[in-house]
Amino acid sequence: MSALPRSGLHASLSDPLLDTMNFLNEVASRHPRAISFAPGRPHDGFFATEEIFAHLRRYVEHLADEGSTPEQIRNALYQYGPAAGKIRELIARSLLLDEGIDVPAASIVVTVGAQEAMLLVVRALMADPADVLLVSSPCYMGITGAARLLDVDVVPVPERPDGLAPADVVDAVEAQVARGRRPRALYVIPDHANPSGVTMSLPARYALLDVAERHDILLIEDSPYRLVSPGEQVPTLKRLDTGRRVVHLGTFAKTIFPGARVGYVVADQPVDGGDAGAAGLLADGLAKIKSMVTVNTPTLTHAGVGGGVLGGGGRLGALNERPAEYYGESMRLMLEHLDRRLPPARRAELGVDWNRPGGGFFLAMSVPFLADNAALARSAEQFGVLWTPMSYFHPGGGGERALRLSTSYLTAAEIEEGTERLARFITAEAARSAELLV
Amino acid sequence: MSALPRSGLHASLSDPLLDTMNFLNEVASRHPRAISFAPGRPHDGFFATEEIFAHLRRYVEHLADEGSTPEQIRNALYQYGPAAGKIRELIARSLLLDEGIDVPAASIVVTVGAQEAMLLVVRALMADPADVLLVSSPCYMGITGAARLLDVDVVPVPERPDGLAPADVVDAVEAQVARGRRPRALYVIPDHANPSGVTMSLPARYALLDVAERHDILLIEDSPYRLVSPGEQVPTLKRLDTGRRVVHLGTFAKTIFPGARVGYVVADQPVDGGDAGAAGLLADGLAKIKSMVTVNTPTLTHAGVGGGVLGGGGRLGALNERPAEYYGESMRLMLEHLDRRLPPARRAELGVDWNRPGGGFFLAMSVPFLADNAALARSAEQFGVLWTPMSYFHPGGGGERALRLSTSYLTAAEIEEGTERLARFITAEAARSAELLV
Repeated sequence: MSALPRSGLHASLSDPLLDTMNFLNEVASRHPRAISFAPGRPHDGFFATEEIFAHLRRYVEHLADEGSTPEQIRNALYQYGPAAGKIRELIARSLLLDEGIDVPAASIVVTVGAQEAMLLVVRALMADPADVLLVSSPCYMGITGAARLLDVDVVPVPERPDGLAPADVVDAVEAQVARGRRPRALYVIPDHANPSGVTMSLPARYALLDVAERHDILLIEDSPYRLVSPGEQVPTLKRLDTGRRVVHLGTFAKTIFPGARVGYVVADQPVDGGDAGAAGLLADGLAKIKSMVTVNTPTLTHAGVGGGVLGGGGRLGALNERPAEYYGESMRLMLEHLDRRLPPARRAELGVDWNRPGGGFFLAMSVPFLADNAALARSAEQFGVLWTPMSYFHPGGGGERALRLSTSYLTAAEIEEGTERLARFITAEAARSAELLV
Repeated sequence: MSALPRSGLHASLSDPLLDTMNFLNEVASRHPRAISFAPGRPHDGFFATEEIFAHLRRYVEHLADEGSTPEQIRNALYQYGPAAGKIRELIARSLLLDEGIDVPAASIVVTVGAQEAMLLVVRALMADPADVLLVSSPCYMGITGAARLLDVDVVPVPERPDGLAPADVVDAVEAQVARGRRPRALYVIPDHANPSGVTMSLPARYALLDVAERHDILLIEDSPYRLVSPGEQVPTLKRLDTGRRVVHLGTFAKTIFPGARVGYVVADQPVDGGDAGAAGLLADGLAKIKSMVTVNTPTLTHAGVGGGVLGGGGRLGALNERPAEYYGESMRLMLEHLDRRLPPARRAELGVDWNRPGGGFFLAMSVPFLADNAALARSAEQFGVLWTPMSYFHPGGGGERALRLSTSYLTAAEIEEGTERLARFITAEAARSAELLV
């Protein structure tokens, strides 16, 4: 056969935004010695190979303690499992202990990472071509990717320096309704957002819940960075949710085991019976969709994560004390070194600034030049430092003069050296772009 | 909030065909003592809990033998992996050794079961509302479910008693083209199909490949039952494929480890560069879509399955000798007991018949009554035997007087007792339906 024409394949395959990550990976592989502020991976040092065996053993023993026979244990590990998952009780309990979120296990669906949860939720809620999904902009790529895959239109709501403003959400909803579209839900990471690092205040959360109620939309709350951030966290939207307006997404990828790819979704919204089938929860519908995506989350990964949670006494809090401290210290170090390399007077002069997240893996920096792929290539080649263009995260355009910096993966020495390289790169680019203007 | 109206959710949630499995599960749970010919699960007896630890240990040792440091091993197990997967070389080698399929590792994407592979392929190929997917009818529900999720139209091609007829595929293609639609691909299980148990002959395979070439469609070949079937198998479509017309799906769910949920897709079709991005293989596009579905197949399950394959010397053949023999014997026993309970004269009198698959997990039986949910409920309540209505597997209607019987999960004693119950049920239903006709 001759080659398949790309134009005959689904549009998501030709999406330039999705090619950007490939570019970043290519640049990184061409410059293996570069220090990279790009990847949002957890730090390796909290993992140990033998722990996997211990997690699995602990899960096996847990099943035995619960009264399972050896045959039942074998089948629990080897065979297909229910679409909604096997460790829903464990997750419900850890949500209560760690987050004060009190939901029935039946409202939880265990997913292959939070990514699959996003796909399920977008699929369930976006039923008609007129249905649109609101997202903060900049926004995590996983949700815009899931929407693109399902041909769902995404409406960006510009994020402000202190987070998503409920009034902006109202404006976006009303503009869509005026165009005959139906906004169904808003996706947001309220805590230490990816990519901006911003955290919504408690009053803003209450206001957002109120907007959701008044305008009949759901809030899709993603929460990957809370438990690996230092200090007291603002309550989740789900904890504050008295009207079942919030679909809450979680993951064990940052807290216990990235490679297990276990996430979950809490969807306790009642669904009426309609003509077809009994009444139930939105979670039941998500499980049904999941049966068409991955059938069920691998039992082996259930066991790995379940054993991990059990090792923490049924909660993640204690397990994550050390990581939270580490990531907090990395962020603090990053800010300290940036301040040292680019003190206030210098950055005012250059036109550079950044925010000061209290946790999470990312911070956002604004720069006086186009932070595009060409600039990234120069940064890698001439200065040995990598970062992510913020424009990658703006589904509707924007962020051309900003970058995302990740602090999660690097050592203290790399952060020190990396910020120095970054400061030199920024200085050179600022000079270059001033010259271009002359 | 008041309940979400089901009518506002995606159509796949209201699909009665997808509720049928729930009905089956409910009936099964109401009648735990019933003998069930319904589930297509592998037999439990080939698994042992401690084997999981051995598989993982073997994979860890394999990485060490290949020169990975302890830190690299830890990261290989714990961290995110590439979207296309980590055991592509192992899979390519086992495909060569077990199936004579010679494809580059780069054409393989490791997926969360074959189900995710179906979703990726349907998504990539169905780009336009005019694009349609052809499927054999009856057909495995996973593919029609994936299509429904993506709002892709499915065109059933009636399967004949000796399998899909290439001439019927031509008719279906031409009828669609005449309606202004674009058939892109045909999904088929050529060997011991689920649900019918039918196997395509070698000449039919050659003819089907020829149809694909002449009508410019791809063949999506699913192959779950080959390696757990006794005796010599007909070559796969992919092995016979000289024009890269075949996208081949595989799974380790029947052969090594159902709960690992590891499948794969071979997509060695070249894709032209177009305006956006470099030329490559269809597999690259599938990996890109996968990054929006599950990001990557869990590294833990890669390790479990990878260790299993390594334990078989890099191929599945020897590992599956005992299972293939077992399943072959179960099928033989099933046919023997059916013959005994319903000998030729008796079944002619009743209007009952069934096929005689040489392998796989399923056989198809035609009956002289409506084999619907009501009949299934009577079968469970009054006779203590379960089966699957064949109508569940016909996306365009059909199969109302047929059932699927699975032989994979039961013991010899259960097969003997189950066939006796089934014969009594069939006799009673035939009498009942004759009475209704009077």
